[in-house]
Amino acid sequence: MTRVWLPDPPETLGGLPDGMVADVWKGGEPLPQTRDEVEIIVLPFGVTPETLATISRLPNLKLIQLTSAGAERVIPYVPASVTLCNARGAHDAATAEWTVGVIVAHLRSFPRFIEAQEQGRWDFAPSESVAGKQVLIVGYGSIGGAVERRLAGWEVTIERVARTGRPAEGVRGIEDLHAVLPHADVVVLLVPVTGQTRHLVNAEFLASMKDGALLVNAARGAIVDTDALLKELSTRRIRAALDVTEPEPLPPGHPLWTAPGLLLTPHVGGAITDTRERAYAVVSAQLARYAAGEPLQNVIGPRGY
Amino acid sequence: MTRVWLPDPPETLGGLPDGMVADVWKGGEPLPQTRDEVEIIVLPFGVTPETLATISRLPNLKLIQLTSAGAERVIPYVPASVTLCNARGAHDAATAEWTVGVIVAHLRSFPRFIEAQEQGRWDFAPSESVAGKQVLIVGYGSIGGAVERRLAGWEVTIERVARTGRPAEGVRGIEDLHAVLPHADVVVLLVPVTGQTRHLVNAEFLASMKDGALLVNAARGAIVDTDALLKELSTRRIRAALDVTEPEPLPPGHPLWTAPGLLLTPHVGGAITDTRERAYAVVSAQLARYAAGEPLQNVIGPRGY
Repeated sequence: MTRVWLPDPPETLGGLPDGMVADVWKGGEPLPQTRDEVEIIVLPFGVTPETLATISRLPNLKLIQLTSAGAERVIPYVPASVTLCNARGAHDAATAEWTVGVIVAHLRSFPRFIEAQEQGRWDFAPSESVAGKQVLIVGYGSIGGAVERRLAGWEVTIERVARTGRPAEGVRGIEDLHAVLPHADVVVLLVPVTGQTRHLVNAEFLASMKDGALLVNAARGAIVDTDALLKELSTRRIRAALDVTEPEPLPPGHPLWTAPGLLLTPHVGGAITDTRERAYAVVSAQLARYAAGEPLQNVIGPRGY
Repeated sequence: MTRVWLPDPPETLGGLPDGMVADVWKGGEPLPQTRDEVEIIVLPFGVTPETLATISRLPNLKLIQLTSAGAERVIPYVPASVTLCNARGAHDAATAEWTVGVIVAHLRSFPRFIEAQEQGRWDFAPSESVAGKQVLIVGYGSIGGAVERRLAGWEVTIERVARTGRPAEGVRGIEDLHAVLPHADVVVLLVPVTGQTRHLVNAEFLASMKDGALLVNAARGAIVDTDALLKELSTRRIRAALDVTEPEPLPPGHPLWTAPGLLLTPHVGGAITDTRERAYAVVSAQLARYAAGEPLQNVIGPRGY
């Protein structure tokens, strides 16, 4: 029998493949008593670094399966003998909706109108159209594709950059970023956190963005140098929409709260009412592959990709 | 020579067809001295009813060309000898962006997060996805098509209703409204104001909407019975996003300002920085047709369609 730890009862996943038995583990202490048997852990949210260090040393562990797309918090604790997989695809729709939603909201001045509504003021003002804009997607994976599908009818042009270029799909390599960045009206960040992408958006990156451009971070706070962004926002040279911050949660009184031209949401890009169902559908398919001895999908290496 | 009154110099339209001469008239008094000659008036915004009554009696007037889509303010003043045309198409992109934008903003709780940002609070909460929703477009013309194109990649289903059904395009006639309305998660109003559509959204219409459904008014305030809507909003049974109100502008202290579950913007659906350019492109094409003796487009009859 293959022992699996799940954050919820197996019924929530529509049952387990034959040959698998489960313990429910929600991420706290104590660990289930099947420490010496467990082969697969479907990782709950919010597991502390100390606990991550403990579980990664379990003697029979083969697979840590995430329900998130981001893996950066877990990677440092995964031994070479354990495979780490993310939930690629589970959060595509939600994150892409958030991304296109904040682009429209920002360009069409929704924050201004919402503030005027709160004050009971009829505050007519024209705003910018989305139509005619060039949107650059930095980190073009499954979420990037979901963003592009949602922008298909919006009369925008799309540029795509990924770690490795895929010319057949119109995706440029990261080495071309400097060539396309200055032309983008909207820059969408969807890269994972890796050694290469941490603070990718630094002062130099921001200085390359055109005046008035909109930076959209749907990835992780660590991709952006917060101080450098604050400098550009304070002069109102560029604008931003952030779902993620560094630090996160953003503490009370942090200067980002009052930065001009910023739309800030509390890491809700993937947070829709059926987030769990969507993630568990991806987990179920993975467990079926494991049980059948098929190759696992969405394997994350020690460098984060 | 054909005399035309324009709200801006002819250069703004890229010049006039051969055989046309223009006066600039911005809608105020006095009228240009060419009253007895003018054949075409491209109507400025904000012309008063008194002035509309005057110009519609000009002896040689053949065509009133609007720069808006809505014609309801002008129709009562147009004599049978004068043709009225709207600017169909000019505001499609802007209005469709607003429409899809408020659907995403409302379902994904942007007003809540914007309020939390103003207060410096990290207020994490899951919200509803757009994916999986059924969107009903009531009034399926060129703006409806623009909305549908923008929703193409969003994993939604679309129902379309127009005054006259067009089965080949998947558009139902208004007589089917009662059959589809109870199934819609989002109801988008895009109908012109006519005798048939004034207060189309009354208590009975609202009662037919499903619990939690979102009403989006991108058309005109007169389509909705404001008191009936206020009743449904106050019980939080349905939600709404309005760009237009009755009365409009909404006066200070009006109960809509504080109605729960309402996102209210100040008639900015069509208001983007190049609204004038887009409208004048439609006007130019119409003037070219007139000069060439070709049939005019977007003719509005006395009943508003």
